[in-house]
Amino acid sequence: MTSAGKVYLIGAGPGDPELMTLRALRLLSEAEIVVYDRLVSPDILALCPEGAERIAVGKAPECHPVPQEQINDLLLEHAGEGRIVARLKGGDPLIFGRGSEEAAHLRAHGIEVAIVPGITAAQGAASATGVPLTHRGLAGAVQYVTGHRQAGQVLDLDWKRLADPDSTLVIYMGVANIGQIAMGLMTEGLDPATPVLAVAEVTTPRERRLLSRLDMLGRDVRTAKLEAPVLFMIGRVVSLYSKIALPEDVAAKAMAAAHA
Amino acid sequence: MTSAGKVYLIGAGPGDPELMTLRALRLLSEAEIVVYDRLVSPDILALCPEGAERIAVGKAPECHPVPQEQINDLLLEHAGEGRIVARLKGGDPLIFGRGSEEAAHLRAHGIEVAIVPGITAAQGAASATGVPLTHRGLAGAVQYVTGHRQAGQVLDLDWKRLADPDSTLVIYMGVANIGQIAMGLMTEGLDPATPVLAVAEVTTPRERRLLSRLDMLGRDVRTAKLEAPVLFMIGRVVSLYSKIALPEDVAAKAMAAAHA
Repeated sequence: MTSAGKVYLIGAGPGDPELMTLRALRLLSEAEIVVYDRLVSPDILALCPEGAERIAVGKAPECHPVPQEQINDLLLEHAGEGRIVARLKGGDPLIFGRGSEEAAHLRAHGIEVAIVPGITAAQGAASATGVPLTHRGLAGAVQYVTGHRQAGQVLDLDWKRLADPDSTLVIYMGVANIGQIAMGLMTEGLDPATPVLAVAEVTTPRERRLLSRLDMLGRDVRTAKLEAPVLFMIGRVVSLYSKIALPEDVAAKAMAAAHA
Repeated sequence: MTSAGKVYLIGAGPGDPELMTLRALRLLSEAEIVVYDRLVSPDILALCPEGAERIAVGKAPECHPVPQEQINDLLLEHAGEGRIVARLKGGDPLIFGRGSEEAAHLRAHGIEVAIVPGITAAQGAASATGVPLTHRGLAGAVQYVTGHRQAGQVLDLDWKRLADPDSTLVIYMGVANIGQIAMGLMTEGLDPATPVLAVAEVTTPRERRLLSRLDMLGRDVRTAKLEAPVLFMIGRVVSLYSKIALPEDVAAKAMAAAHA
């Protein structure tokens, strides 16, 4: 009988390896097997222990992803054989990460699971651009929503609830449907002039930003040819973009220095 | 003429020092002055460089806090004298942290500012308890709201928008008003049996948890004598608590080991 393995569900953060937590790095260093998603950047994979086996289960838009059930079984199989498995996910495992499905499956089979939070893309975008998620007088709340649906499924968002001028709305995985999302929000009364900041590949060397407004958003995103992963920050806080962000800020320099 | 200083607005995370990011730790180590809030734990303050001057500007419920304008000026003064200032905040500086007010003030005066995101309390509570912020079929979105108001101000939350059975609602700084919040949500149709998990001093050795439901919440919180800081997770995801969380999970052990 082998001793039981365990699974670390680790949030790898938004892209920049320096935005991982100390615990994420420590537990990753213990891993014998690393099971990772497409959104985990090469710079972060480079931090895996040398001898660790790496298994990609990522979902690229045109590839057939590994079905969730198969990922669950893969984790269970390796941990069941007594190994230490790191399950690396972009962002935070418990925000649009399906980490709780994996944890429930593993714990139901008696496998120990530890969950390590990660900086989610919204926070990465906020700190990189200077646009806050909340700000007195502009947004007293922030909401994260996914704009992605499986092929053939309807985008059934509750536009009335989302069209709130007093809070910040962050759309994850919404680039394919962003025109429809903007239209839904305007139909429910959100000001067409509401500013929007789109950030692609946030906190990586490939980061791109697009400043737009709700009524121009679909066209602007198409013209700029923004490709997933793109995060959209929608709301009055975006009006602070030029005021707070500098063209080249200390954070960017710090990132460059860290990668040098 | 002195060379210009700079300010690092650093998110210290939810409490456990190991949940700080690598960048937070690196920039903190450069600081000559550390200006910190009450919610920054002693364990994290212990990571400040030895020679650095520490200035507390925290707000305890019964103390007179340092007004925001005075904090802004303090940061400006020290950075203006050429020093490297770390402004340490609990959680994330751009989520209920007023970091954007400080950044705007400093940048308006030509001071360089870098912002480092932090794991926010909601993420700390999720990873510690296993209760996800989103989960397929239970919550397709998550919203963070503050339940705090200045003395004498009305709690003017938009109950209709918040009473959404299909998303997770996280209340920050709401312990004083939680009975009123629960009532507002039920009045707008949220099921009185909706499960709620309250977590005090999340991810610290003093963490306390209370599992309740909307209609019992005010009474239960009073009976348990929960004191700020308390975070409330409200929604169907909380039904996963017993299913996912183990009484003593690997994360807790890892935290204990890290502090040993």
